[in-house]
Amino acid sequence: MVEMIEGGVTKPQGFLAAGVHSGVKYRSMDLGIVYSEVPADAFVGYTSNKVKSAPVQVMMKENSPKLSAVVVNSGNANALTGRRGMEDAITMKETAAAELNLDPAEVGVMSTGLIGRFMDMHKVKYGISKAAGSLSKGRDADASFAEAIMTTDTIKKECAAAARLKDGTLVNIGAISKGSGMIAPHMKVLHGTTLTLITTDAKLSPAFLETWQEILDDSMNMVSVDGDQSTNDTCILMANAMSGGNCADKDPEFKAALMEVMTTLARTIALDGEGATKLIEVQVMGAETKDDARKAVHAIINSPLVKSAIFGSDPNYGRIMMALGNSGCAFNLEDVRLTIKGGDMEVPILDSGAPVFQEERSVEVVRMAMDNKEVTIIVDLAIGDGQAVGWGCDLTYDYVRINAEYAT
Amino acid sequence: MVEMIEGGVTKPQGFLAAGVHSGVKYRSMDLGIVYSEVPADAFVGYTSNKVKSAPVQVMMKENSPKLSAVVVNSGNANALTGRRGMEDAITMKETAAAELNLDPAEVGVMSTGLIGRFMDMHKVKYGISKAAGSLSKGRDADASFAEAIMTTDTIKKECAAAARLKDGTLVNIGAISKGSGMIAPHMKVLHGTTLTLITTDAKLSPAFLETWQEILDDSMNMVSVDGDQSTNDTCILMANAMSGGNCADKDPEFKAALMEVMTTLARTIALDGEGATKLIEVQVMGAETKDDARKAVHAIINSPLVKSAIFGSDPNYGRIMMALGNSGCAFNLEDVRLTIKGGDMEVPILDSGAPVFQEERSVEVVRMAMDNKEVTIIVDLAIGDGQAVGWGCDLTYDYVRINAEYAT
Repeated sequence: MVEMIEGGVTKPQGFLAAGVHSGVKYRSMDLGIVYSEVPADAFVGYTSNKVKSAPVQVMMKENSPKLSAVVVNSGNANALTGRRGMEDAITMKETAAAELNLDPAEVGVMSTGLIGRFMDMHKVKYGISKAAGSLSKGRDADASFAEAIMTTDTIKKECAAAARLKDGTLVNIGAISKGSGMIAPHMKVLHGTTLTLITTDAKLSPAFLETWQEILDDSMNMVSVDGDQSTNDTCILMANAMSGGNCADKDPEFKAALMEVMTTLARTIALDGEGATKLIEVQVMGAETKDDARKAVHAIINSPLVKSAIFGSDPNYGRIMMALGNSGCAFNLEDVRLTIKGGDMEVPILDSGAPVFQEERSVEVVRMAMDNKEVTIIVDLAIGDGQAVGWGCDLTYDYVRINAEYAT
Repeated sequence: MVEMIEGGVTKPQGFLAAGVHSGVKYRSMDLGIVYSEVPADAFVGYTSNKVKSAPVQVMMKENSPKLSAVVVNSGNANALTGRRGMEDAITMKETAAAELNLDPAEVGVMSTGLIGRFMDMHKVKYGISKAAGSLSKGRDADASFAEAIMTTDTIKKECAAAARLKDGTLVNIGAISKGSGMIAPHMKVLHGTTLTLITTDAKLSPAFLETWQEILDDSMNMVSVDGDQSTNDTCILMANAMSGGNCADKDPEFKAALMEVMTTLARTIALDGEGATKLIEVQVMGAETKDDARKAVHAIINSPLVKSAIFGSDPNYGRIMMALGNSGCAFNLEDVRLTIKGGDMEVPILDSGAPVFQEERSVEVVRMAMDNKEVTIIVDLAIGDGQAVGWGCDLTYDYVRINAEYAT
């Protein structure tokens, strides 16, 4: 039994959080800490961009199996900051460790914001001390932490789930994510700038890492706002076992609950893509392989022409096929079925390599389906069993505005 | 000796052209023919998109070594039109052949415009007959043909060059290209919707095909407006040998002249990218391989974040490194040198993996360099000899407007 419930990162037993204003940003909250009363097993996915931020490099090198706290700042990504950036990321860990009476190895660090500027460590250290002193539980704590890690986000990406495991244990999962631009994570476990923090009181073993990669691949790694993978993407799962009960590694209910949480976050990130007015879901089925299906989803969801057509509810479905044709995925044009869904309309588009209709009136039906807050593109390649689902958003005037003015 | 001269496709000896209004488009000219008085050796590059338009499929299948004419329509891409589309493309060839007293195999066909709609062949046939009857030489003929193949283009992409070959022969090259959106050609010889037609009175042999691919790879295939490769890209070179003289296959002056013509077209296509206000040139040098350098150029030039930053002259150079990091190209961050050029300013940005400056005043210098009609990004990876140059444009409000309203 999996149930989505009200709550955030402090929902599972033993987790506290705080968000404060350190001064890195002019006004908004910009520094947060999540803390577990007992050391938690940590499962981390990092960006696969070759240019990695200082906090990502520091975390990957240390590769701690257990984390008791994670410190996060927004406003400055601490990326492209060379040796000084590395020192600053280490200082963030050390400062939080000292404040919380922990070993620095038990403290995770994440940063998001502008690339290529040094951190103002005076402000950051002040913020860490303030946040460490105001850790608490409940919706206010969730909210302050969530706000502290946001950049151009306009929606709070938070959710929680409860699952009853096979042994009867009730476990909770809390989750928070930030990310609106530079979003096309391709996170590799151990080795996504969405910053995501998942807390759970379930008990997990190190062997859960493989399942974690699988879940990341089907959720976070299938979101794309602009096809630009960040230097800072990091996704941390902390499991502190405080629910009691057996190891949940193989429990189908736990996996289902975690997948539901991750998918909810992924869809919210896409919907809150910079300047987005619509959520686009792309479903590809019948591909030769899963990898092929993924390639096709990514090509469609990243095409600026598809994205701007959907923004304008412009029934230019040929662009979807153009993107599919560039994806490198195997298919025979004559066999491809293309359907566009929006609201309660489901419109078949292609048959035998040509549109099923040509009349202006029928094209109008496509426009009506596209004129919805959520548009689903369904592509059936009909040559195999490979399938994948991904999420993106439309390309709007506001995306351009936000990104033409970001640093200033 | 290579000299860029005034002229278009009818500049070389023996070439005639015409552009007319057939009625496929409401008002503008929409159908053109280029004709050579003697059969010309043909070298053709086609889109490598798996979804290929009907004219591309027909041309690839026939693979004629000689062409005497090329018929082109705009307003309808004749793509995603199934069997009927193939028949229509063949009818276009046959109609032109009948009007011009040619074998249909000697007639090339290209289409550009909306995808997924059937051609109105009544109008197209009328247009072909009208164009065939009004073929002529000179700047008016060049201009009418150029206009007839344009879609969202705002600049006429035309140029000509003269070269004195080693044997003393003076040859002319004339060129016309269209393309503004769905531009990221990756054309393979024999086997990019930029439509490009190059005419020359030089004498070439079939062995020139290899050089032609090399030139395409370094010119047209390095242009990207939106990273979306069209279903219709085609680039035809017609060489009718009317200049007399020896075979120019290996003549360095001829190659230089053709490369200059193709580069001029490539830069003009980028500058006239849909909604573009700036031309972006990306130079990558010191890569391990040429292929790596190409990957890096494409990643930077296709990044929506880089493109929108340049639109706003926003000195967010970290995004260039983000794009480089995602390119799959090998490099060591500490060795990368990044320079931004604009107007007469040349600003070094990176040293040892971190920006060379942090002061707001220095960042202002980057903004000033970016605030130019032409911005050059120079990346030196310092690990090898691989180099590549590519061209793109900024991402603007107008790109979104044009593409949210295209079909309507």
